[in-house]
Amino acid sequence: MLSKRIVKYIQSLSHKKLRDEHGQFITETPKVVAEFLSAGKSRCQILCADKIWISENDNLLKNVLPGNIYEIDETLLQRISLLKTPNKVLAVFDKLPVSKPALSGKFSLMLDDIRDPGNMGTIIRNADWFGIENIICSENSADCYNPKVVQASMGSLARVNIMYTPLHAFICANKNVSVYAAALSGTSLSALKNIEEGIILIGNESRGIGEDLLNEARLHITIPRYGNAESLNAAVASGIILSHIKSPMAPEGGTKSL
Amino acid sequence: MLSKRIVKYIQSLSHKKLRDEHGQFITETPKVVAEFLSAGKSRCQILCADKIWISENDNLLKNVLPGNIYEIDETLLQRISLLKTPNKVLAVFDKLPVSKPALSGKFSLMLDDIRDPGNMGTIIRNADWFGIENIICSENSADCYNPKVVQASMGSLARVNIMYTPLHAFICANKNVSVYAAALSGTSLSALKNIEEGIILIGNESRGIGEDLLNEARLHITIPRYGNAESLNAAVASGIILSHIKSPMAPEGGTKSL
Repeated sequence: MLSKRIVKYIQSLSHKKLRDEHGQFITETPKVVAEFLSAGKSRCQILCADKIWISENDNLLKNVLPGNIYEIDETLLQRISLLKTPNKVLAVFDKLPVSKPALSGKFSLMLDDIRDPGNMGTIIRNADWFGIENIICSENSADCYNPKVVQASMGSLARVNIMYTPLHAFICANKNVSVYAAALSGTSLSALKNIEEGIILIGNESRGIGEDLLNEARLHITIPRYGNAESLNAAVASGIILSHIKSPMAPEGGTKSL
Repeated sequence: MLSKRIVKYIQSLSHKKLRDEHGQFITETPKVVAEFLSAGKSRCQILCADKIWISENDNLLKNVLPGNIYEIDETLLQRISLLKTPNKVLAVFDKLPVSKPALSGKFSLMLDDIRDPGNMGTIIRNADWFGIENIICSENSADCYNPKVVQASMGSLARVNIMYTPLHAFICANKNVSVYAAALSGTSLSALKNIEEGIILIGNESRGIGEDLLNEARLHITIPRYGNAESLNAAVASGIILSHIKSPMAPEGGTKSL
């Protein structure tokens, strides 16, 4: 039986302050729930779902304490949900532990005040696609446990180490690793082709990268422009840069020729 | 004086049916208003703004009929606006004329049921950045004049030719131009390096590209994956593919080395 106290607690997790206080977050995206349950790195503390979802996802629920699973009907789900159109499931997980990022011999991402939750989630998904293990975020960036970020990350949140810290101090403490700042003017990103280690720095959606951070960058990297748009979306830019870093040298299998 | 009839008309443009009926659309994004006014390709039929915006943007308003400009206060703007937090300006423009896309000797984009307005707008912005002139959309794709699409396009909507048409028939009528389908398995996108003409086909956010269209593709193109995400966001994928098509061969100016 889902008590009023639990319902209130679930809804309180829409606020960052309370997520931080309790070290838990909420998600209502079925794919994210499934990915977190199967990754098994984070305990599921509350799971509310309708009868059908529960019976169809029996195999995912083996590590959830039976007392934490609540079978509820559509009306109740509608009442608890933070969404206009609730899905069939809603779950509360422990936030993941954050580890000190190992930067050597690989590329990491650094985000200077990415504010839009959709962008933040999409960047996490990009990082996961391209095998980037660490994202270092300024403290004013969107919280990676904001429900909209969690949704846009499509489960990748379970696989990327995300740290919030003052960026300038972080760069100064890691002077042996070069920072490559994504900017509107600078060296074409093809310059990154033969580099195997570094921090790719992406700036805020409106004002770009802070001057203090730009000054610490080894190179300002730009995505060559062929048309007239003033800028690219931050998540798109991060995806393009990561793709060029990992750029394949030759075509791969599966060719289909008509 | 802004009559009730005009207010009602402005608000009706949040619906596609009425945008289609009247051939007009609304935007409340200052950057988009400015870009459409300066592009001068589309008549501004109604412009509501506060005193400060009007005086600061005097140069943009020279081609707007004085009778179409309404100076209104915050309270009224709040009442008319479709946004929770209105900006300082709101404008109604004529939709742009659509021209038959010339496909030869260049790359075009084709979208099979891109439904998310944010993705649609971001793809239009990507196209504009990479100098893609034409986007051919399936009829179930998000309407490019949906206010959220207009906002995410950041003014690029004024510079890209966007056509809605049944895609299979369009491909069959343009058999001389190859279609490259973005898929989760296929040839690495580096195969596109030396090709200078074609249609890049991007699929729906959940179900990908329809089978009938996949069958017409010359190649299935994939973005090599190095991590564990199941897929990439559709707007990110389109940006990565366009960037590889246009991929620069050598670093460009502006290098900054510390």
